[in-house]
Amino acid sequence: MSKKYVYLFSEGDASMKNLLGGKGANLAEMTLLGIPVPQGFTVTTEACTQYYVDGKMISADITKEIETKMAELEAIAGKQFGSAENPFLVSVRSGARASMPGMMDTVLNLGLTDVVVEGLVKKTGNPRFAYDSYRRFIQMFSDVVMDVEKHRFEKLIDVMKEEKGVQFDTDLTADDLKELIVRYKKMFKEVKGFDFPQDPKIQLIESIEAVFRSWDNPRAIYYRRMNDIPSSWGTAVNVQAMVFGNMGDTSGTGVAFTRNPSTGENKLYGEYLMNAQGEDVVAGIRTPLPMSELQIQNPAIYNEFMEYSNKLQDHYKDMQDMEFTIEDGKLYMLQTRNGKRTAAAALKIAVDLVAEGMITKEDAILKVDPKQLDALLHPTFVAKALKDAKIVAKGLPASPGAACGKVYFSAVDAAAAEAKGEKVILVRLETSPEDIEGMAAAQGILTARGGMTSHAAVVARGMGTCCVAGCGDIKVMEHDGYFTTKDGLKFSEGDYISLDGSTGNVYGAKVDTEEAQLTGDFAQFMAWADEIRTLKVRANADTPHDAEVAQKFGAEGIGLCRTEHMFFDEDRLPSVREMIVAKTEEQRRKALAKLLPMQRADFEGLFKAMSGFPVTIRLLDPPLHEFLPHSDEDIKALATEMGLSFEELKETVESLQEFNPMMGHRGCRLAVSYPEIAEMQAQAIIEAAINVNKAGMSVVPEIMIPLVGEVVELKYVKNIVVTTANAVIEKAGVTLDYKVGTMIEIPRAAVTADAIATEAEFFSFGTNDLTQMTYGFSRDDAGKFLNDYYDKKIFESDPFAKLDQVGVGALIKLAVKLGKQARPDIKLGICGEHGGDPSSVEFCHHAGLNYVSCSPFRVPIARLAAAQARVSEIRGVENLGQK
Amino acid sequence: MSKKYVYLFSEGDASMKNLLGGKGANLAEMTLLGIPVPQGFTVTTEACTQYYVDGKMISADITKEIETKMAELEAIAGKQFGSAENPFLVSVRSGARASMPGMMDTVLNLGLTDVVVEGLVKKTGNPRFAYDSYRRFIQMFSDVVMDVEKHRFEKLIDVMKEEKGVQFDTDLTADDLKELIVRYKKMFKEVKGFDFPQDPKIQLIESIEAVFRSWDNPRAIYYRRMNDIPSSWGTAVNVQAMVFGNMGDTSGTGVAFTRNPSTGENKLYGEYLMNAQGEDVVAGIRTPLPMSELQIQNPAIYNEFMEYSNKLQDHYKDMQDMEFTIEDGKLYMLQTRNGKRTAAAALKIAVDLVAEGMITKEDAILKVDPKQLDALLHPTFVAKALKDAKIVAKGLPASPGAACGKVYFSAVDAAAAEAKGEKVILVRLETSPEDIEGMAAAQGILTARGGMTSHAAVVARGMGTCCVAGCGDIKVMEHDGYFTTKDGLKFSEGDYISLDGSTGNVYGAKVDTEEAQLTGDFAQFMAWADEIRTLKVRANADTPHDAEVAQKFGAEGIGLCRTEHMFFDEDRLPSVREMIVAKTEEQRRKALAKLLPMQRADFEGLFKAMSGFPVTIRLLDPPLHEFLPHSDEDIKALATEMGLSFEELKETVESLQEFNPMMGHRGCRLAVSYPEIAEMQAQAIIEAAINVNKAGMSVVPEIMIPLVGEVVELKYVKNIVVTTANAVIEKAGVTLDYKVGTMIEIPRAAVTADAIATEAEFFSFGTNDLTQMTYGFSRDDAGKFLNDYYDKKIFESDPFAKLDQVGVGALIKLAVKLGKQARPDIKLGICGEHGGDPSSVEFCHHAGLNYVSCSPFRVPIARLAAAQARVSEIRGVENLGQK
Repeated sequence: MSKKYVYLFSEGDASMKNLLGGKGANLAEMTLLGIPVPQGFTVTTEACTQYYVDGKMISADITKEIETKMAELEAIAGKQFGSAENPFLVSVRSGARASMPGMMDTVLNLGLTDVVVEGLVKKTGNPRFAYDSYRRFIQMFSDVVMDVEKHRFEKLIDVMKEEKGVQFDTDLTADDLKELIVRYKKMFKEVKGFDFPQDPKIQLIESIEAVFRSWDNPRAIYYRRMNDIPSSWGTAVNVQAMVFGNMGDTSGTGVAFTRNPSTGENKLYGEYLMNAQGEDVVAGIRTPLPMSELQIQNPAIYNEFMEYSNKLQDHYKDMQDMEFTIEDGKLYMLQTRNGKRTAAAALKIAVDLVAEGMITKEDAILKVDPKQLDALLHPTFVAKALKDAKIVAKGLPASPGAACGKVYFSAVDAAAAEAKGEKVILVRLETSPEDIEGMAAAQGILTARGGMTSHAAVVARGMGTCCVAGCGDIKVMEHDGYFTTKDGLKFSEGDYISLDGSTGNVYGAKVDTEEAQLTGDFAQFMAWADEIRTLKVRANADTPHDAEVAQKFGAEGIGLCRTEHMFFDEDRLPSVREMIVAKTEEQRRKALAKLLPMQRADFEGLFKAMSGFPVTIRLLDPPLHEFLPHSDEDIKALATEMGLSFEELKETVESLQEFNPMMGHRGCRLAVSYPEIAEMQAQAIIEAAINVNKAGMSVVPEIMIPLVGEVVELKYVKNIVVTTANAVIEKAGVTLDYKVGTMIEIPRAAVTADAIATEAEFFSFGTNDLTQMTYGFSRDDAGKFLNDYYDKKIFESDPFAKLDQVGVGALIKLAVKLGKQARPDIKLGICGEHGGDPSSVEFCHHAGLNYVSCSPFRVPIARLAAAQARVSEIRGVENLGQK
Repeated sequence: MSKKYVYLFSEGDASMKNLLGGKGANLAEMTLLGIPVPQGFTVTTEACTQYYVDGKMISADITKEIETKMAELEAIAGKQFGSAENPFLVSVRSGARASMPGMMDTVLNLGLTDVVVEGLVKKTGNPRFAYDSYRRFIQMFSDVVMDVEKHRFEKLIDVMKEEKGVQFDTDLTADDLKELIVRYKKMFKEVKGFDFPQDPKIQLIESIEAVFRSWDNPRAIYYRRMNDIPSSWGTAVNVQAMVFGNMGDTSGTGVAFTRNPSTGENKLYGEYLMNAQGEDVVAGIRTPLPMSELQIQNPAIYNEFMEYSNKLQDHYKDMQDMEFTIEDGKLYMLQTRNGKRTAAAALKIAVDLVAEGMITKEDAILKVDPKQLDALLHPTFVAKALKDAKIVAKGLPASPGAACGKVYFSAVDAAAAEAKGEKVILVRLETSPEDIEGMAAAQGILTARGGMTSHAAVVARGMGTCCVAGCGDIKVMEHDGYFTTKDGLKFSEGDYISLDGSTGNVYGAKVDTEEAQLTGDFAQFMAWADEIRTLKVRANADTPHDAEVAQKFGAEGIGLCRTEHMFFDEDRLPSVREMIVAKTEEQRRKALAKLLPMQRADFEGLFKAMSGFPVTIRLLDPPLHEFLPHSDEDIKALATEMGLSFEELKETVESLQEFNPMMGHRGCRLAVSYPEIAEMQAQAIIEAAINVNKAGMSVVPEIMIPLVGEVVELKYVKNIVVTTANAVIEKAGVTLDYKVGTMIEIPRAAVTADAIATEAEFFSFGTNDLTQMTYGFSRDDAGKFLNDYYDKKIFESDPFAKLDQVGVGALIKLAVKLGKQARPDIKLGICGEHGGDPSSVEFCHHAGLNYVSCSPFRVPIARLAAAQARVSEIRGVENLGQK
């Protein structure tokens, strides 16, 4: 039995989206609903996939099936394809499962030839319309199907207009257009070496192939990667009878939304143009009219449209984005789909639809893309202010939001300026952990080097600070206090710039920003999400301030406090360095004793800020060389400061150097070598918990041991922690519960999770490192080749942004299974950056984790994603089908 | 039901080695055989384990059981412990499952007190004997059990000898010794603050505890790590009635082997000393007599001994190492065990025992430790020559064998000197890939830095060249052409030194070496191993020379040819560098075209050398920066050579720098970025195969794609290879089979092996990288903390030397299962350094691999290990129990 590759609209319905694409399924559904739709057929997404399997060829079988359906369509229309007497014209449009607006190709007016156009003239008595349609078709077909550049046609039109002394295309007469067609075809032959195809069947098959091909054009590939659309889906192709909005004043075309896509307001929103084809509305040469005008001009058509509009919204239970054409006084609906909308509109519409009784809360939860929420949480530019701002450079959109301030080139200067009340943008070649204070002081961060997962990007996202990273367009002279752009513009310390962290744009001037407004709809909507979800959401937070932000965004605890971030503080760094250069345990303990009270105060602050929610504190993780300077100059300065000889300090720095720092002396390996560090941290954590509990709280601290690969290693470090903790508790004469657990971030820990779980009371999947180790490439280095991987379609998404469910996910599932076998009540969470990625959150829900932990600004996203995962689970569908 | 922790010798037998330890089980077995053994009991290894579980305490239950058995023993002996009238003395000796000679502690003459010693005087009428025994006991017990340093006692003896004007201990009279005892006890009290224990029961329990404690002394831990003995085994303790060889001229003691442990000759080999205790034989103050002298002096005792000796050898079907004591004319056997022997002796004995019909070939296979074979394969020092050689420094025994030559400090100088016919030792701070030629030219390699898995060590082992690495005792001034030792000796270019790569010793003079002799026994024995084993053994070899060596050692193919080693050759490096600095694909192809004929010739050479055995060739693997210089000086020189500006080349070098080269742009990632490199290599391989096949061979090349983590990645690179290969084959108008497979060296590849196997025709487990990625630490960096891991007993062996069967092994098993699911006839091998480690080979056999591949010099080891694995499989035992 052979597969069916072509469906008449009357053979499909909305449920067949995967096969027919969104557009095709909806055209079929409208047909079913009895709404006037120009009839047609859909070549399925499977035909597209087969096209690629067959080495970019449409097989004879599929071609034959298309021709059969075409004949059926002719019968329905009562017209003949290629006939001069009763010509039948069609449009050919792409239509993937997920809407990819503007990414793929379309051909209109297909079926016109030298002969047919004359038939059209006769039949319509409208030669200008007929010739205009034909020249449009030649232009579109040549561009889309035959790779003849558009500008060649535009040039010919310009010449013609000049000859005729007219300004607009619409001023050209039928005869002008007829002559233009001749010139078009002549040029076509010169470029291609053969005549413009005069067989409508060949035009059709070639056009369908062109649409299939366009599935793999660079902009479509890019769009898919940005939107997590697998390339294996393919696109469907819709072949539809043409209706003409350009047949005179009783014809027209338009686009409308059932609700306002900007604000969500429940009021028809759209515009139309009489005597026009769809492209004219978009082209902006004539100004379209609002739909309210149609109500006045042609109430009958308007009312008919409103009937369909309401019917479709009720039917799809969502705001619809519709295209329509009026041909000689008759209304046709050309497309409907769930309309794209702003984040604010998405929330309002979801909440309103529930209030109107049209959908349930669960439906509402599924209607908002979690990623969209991000836009609501960060400052944005004042639209008016942005209008005149000039983009002077473009980098990677590393951390969303808008920022404006005076540029500073060192963390110290930035912090000092901020202390004086200035708004500051920190501009660096790249940032390092020592820059933390300056980064925290800045409104935004701009770096010349580093990718989406560079230090600047990761830290900025954690802080919710706007960041444009890897901006190769600028040259930064940190020491001389200025940067220049490609165009030779120079920005010196104190000059204003503005950053858009959501687009990567850098503006060379002050652009006012406004704070995010969390509307009542947001609160209502998120409350529903919280009601429904079972997966807890925590935040990664290292300071009381972060913790407060996280709580504001609904975090239910801290899943990861990176204690090393506290070590970089200006007042701690000297003691940290003293500890590192210590030659004996005694010296090391002396330095640690200085850090103890500071760490204790840190933890007290965190516990208080989280007011009783659980707090997971990770022991010191990074390699020690991160705390030391590396250039001879800086080493000299520090040596003087510490009263050491340059040689001595240099030797320490060199002895700590590593070939592969990612795979070096860090994590629990530090505690194995220097147990006294873990002791100090355990003491600080437990003392802090005892202190705040004395003040009436009931904190149960969770102490997390990083980078464990072997249970004996965990046991060794846990023993240090437990011995210290119990001694502190005993000395204080109190009782205190605490937990000791581990990160699962090394493949061996996942593989031996049953053994690890005998010692660990909780697992937190550190998916950043786990992804690195599982793939065998480091985030810092992968930037050099990942683009090749995207270009060659080896990877379709960044595994550091979206969890690799196949490989890393398999290890997580294995670890969950083994961990629960050994300790059924083990607490399971994730604290990599994936904790804030919707599809990864969904995975975590289904994998049986108890919580995800992400940066504070992603908490709402994770809450919504968790709710969606729960709804889809209840409904028994793994994929939301929201694409 | 409580466990039984103490067994009389008469309650055990040889099969209970795990519980009673080797010594205890054999004492029980001898008792069973009716051989005269001083009776006693064994405290089990489980008691030792329990001792550690109980926090280093012997539980009351076990103490009670010991006391009960002691009472039974007293009854058997007819003497009383602690009695002055009829004193009963015992020895307390360790005895683990595996023999660990000298690693743990022993206490003799236990049971003596101030009172008992007087009884002993009376009973034996030999006051000198009695007081000598007591002072020996005080000395031994204080040292072993009470931590009073030995030298304190030695000093007191020296003082006494000086006072008495005598030279030897044996010249001291009974009264002298009596006085010495008083001084011993006085000093003991001063040091410890309490009197020397006078309760024999306390002496006994304390001694047993001391033996348990000694299981964990540093030298025992080190020995276990070197010999793969788990610390969980624990040691047993044997408490045995003392018999005295020092009671006069009718008493004596000795040690004998049933065959010569040096040569394997089938003739009793041993020595004895009359009127002496065991320690005197070892101490070397008096010269022992050969056993043939005993035959003359006391034929009755000799004949009795021979009877037992033959009985034991027949019974254990192996060469025995026995200790005996004659007490007042009566022979006692104190110990028997399978004797340690040299590699040559091991082979001869194994082959002889089969010839004598005592054992089967399978038994013989199990009798030789595969690691021992190594000694047979490398040059050794002429024993006579070594006698006067002075050790001037000591490093790590990085690659076995002996070497002697003139020192040179650069690879170029070393190669030049060798070309002139000199024997050369290459001395470097550390080696890098550019040194390959000099390393190949050298007899031996000495480096000041780097560990057992440094570049020098790994490459030297691969070449079978002697190497001492990480020799911190020397300071190397490469540019000034000399090195100095700790003692201030200076060795300049052209001076002779000698290296022992099996011990790490560096000799400051010429020491003659002799080539390895592979005896007829070796060939016979290895033929049996080959008959029995099912696992194939291949070699890692990059040159025809390596391949020939490998074949000589019995390799059945090449499992890994690292093509990059060919790229470092002097005549290729310029083209390789040209390729790397190329700015366009065209430039890159031009450089590659120069490499093509050289690579083709390489592969032709390899195919010919392997005469039809399979050859697996890995595509270029290392990051490209390895081929470029790094210091400004060298960059300048190369820039001039290549006609580039310094800045241009420097920029290229910098752009290739990586944070974590191990996890960077290497392996198949290079082929993804630069498909033309893989194309050139595929072309060279296929053309080479076609050429040699035209000459009558039938080579089926195996092309291996490294560092794959995702099937689409493999598919992409495989497609380049297959397209190129098929084009070459078609052009040549021939038919040629070839296979394309992949390394499994990235955890994700193991986890997704089912998908990978749809494209890969074979898997080769790259366990070096797989171990690094699975543990999350790099070989180069782990050196900094692995010692802490050994010291703290977190790791018991080096996972880069011995395959981690729990973690890495789990991934291998998973990949084997998934791979076979997807492709039942998939070929499976391993090509990490583990391929030459016996326990890892055993694992590979049981995991169902088809072959292991290791460095040529380890091929015989792998062959034997594979045979042992097969025998143990047939016999249904996983562990060989050979320890």
